[in-house]
Amino acid sequence: MIPILSIVGRSNVGKTTLLEKLVRELTGRGYRIATVKHDAHSFEIDHEGKDSWRHKASGAVMTVISSPGKLALVSDTDHDHTLSELRDRFIDHADLIITEGYKKEAHPKIEVFRKERSTELLCVTDDNLLAIAGDPEDRPENVPVFDLDDPASLCDFIEERFLSK
Amino acid sequence: MIPILSIVGRSNVGKTTLLEKLVRELTGRGYRIATVKHDAHSFEIDHEGKDSWRHKASGAVMTVISSPGKLALVSDTDHDHTLSELRDRFIDHADLIITEGYKKEAHPKIEVFRKERSTELLCVTDDNLLAIAGDPEDRPENVPVFDLDDPASLCDFIEERFLSK
Repeated sequence: MIPILSIVGRSNVGKTTLLEKLVRELTGRGYRIATVKHDAHSFEIDHEGKDSWRHKASGAVMTVISSPGKLALVSDTDHDHTLSELRDRFIDHADLIITEGYKKEAHPKIEVFRKERSTELLCVTDDNLLAIAGDPEDRPENVPVFDLDDPASLCDFIEERFLSK
Repeated sequence: MIPILSIVGRSNVGKTTLLEKLVRELTGRGYRIATVKHDAHSFEIDHEGKDSWRHKASGAVMTVISSPGKLALVSDTDHDHTLSELRDRFIDHADLIITEGYKKEAHPKIEVFRKERSTELLCVTDDNLLAIAGDPEDRPENVPVFDLDDPASLCDFIEERFLSK
C-alpha cells in the first residue's frame, strides 16, 4: 500500500512551494512521487477549445486524453474522494503520495508554519503531526522542526519514515 | 463491461464535432457517456502556474486534483494504453465509451467522411466499420450511412446497438 503524507498549513503559507521542493529532491533520489491537490470548490483544467475540452464540455461524465508518454482524465464525481479512495482507484507505480491539504484526514502530516503568517499552529499532535517546516516559537513535544530552505534534511526524515526498504 | 465505440476519419473531417453532437444527444437521453481522445504525440493540459501544474512540473509521476464535484489527474506513462486498458483502469459509472481516434484497434467504428475532404473511406468492413456519417459515394455493403447533421438518427442506431437494456 502506497504511504500517504500530507502537507498542511494556513492559506498562503507556502505549502505548494515546500511540496515542489520535496518532490524535486525525492525524485532526484530516485523515488516516484504522486501528488494530490485538494480543491474545496471547483477548478478549471484543460484549455478551452481543445478537442478534449470539447468532449467534456459536450456532456461527457469523464474524458480521458491518452498519448504514449502522458495520460490525463477529467471526471465528474458525486462526492469528495478520500485519499484512500483516490489511492485505491487511481494511483499506482508510486513510492509515496504527497498531498497538499487534507488536514482533516488521519494521515501523517507536515505543517508549514511561518510566524509572519500566523501565531498558532494549525495542527496538534493528535492530528498525526510528524514534523513542522518553518519557524514556530512553540511546538508540540517530540515534533521536529525543519528549515523551509533545507528540503534535503526534511527529505532525509521522510525517506527514513516512509521509504526505507 | 462498458462498450466502446470509436469515431474515426481523416484529419479535419469533423470527428470532434460529430462526437460532441452524439455525446450531447445521448446525454440528453439519460445515458452517461465517457470519452477518450487519442493523441499520437504529447499534449498540454492544466494551466501554467496553478498549484496542480506546479506539482506535476516539479517531477511528480502523477498528480491528482480532487474536489467535491470534479476530479482530474495527469500522469506519466511508459506506453500507449489500449482502450481496454483505459477502460479497466480508469473508467466506470458510464454506459458507453466513445473514442476519437483509435482506428487501429478492433472496436466497432463509425467513420466520418466528407467527399470534399477525401475520395476514399479510411475503413473497410474488416475494420469493424458499423456505420458512416457523411456523404460517401461508395460504401461497403450493409454499412448504413447517416447524415452528419442528423445526430438523432445516428443515436437511435447507437442506442439500438449498444444501449438497449
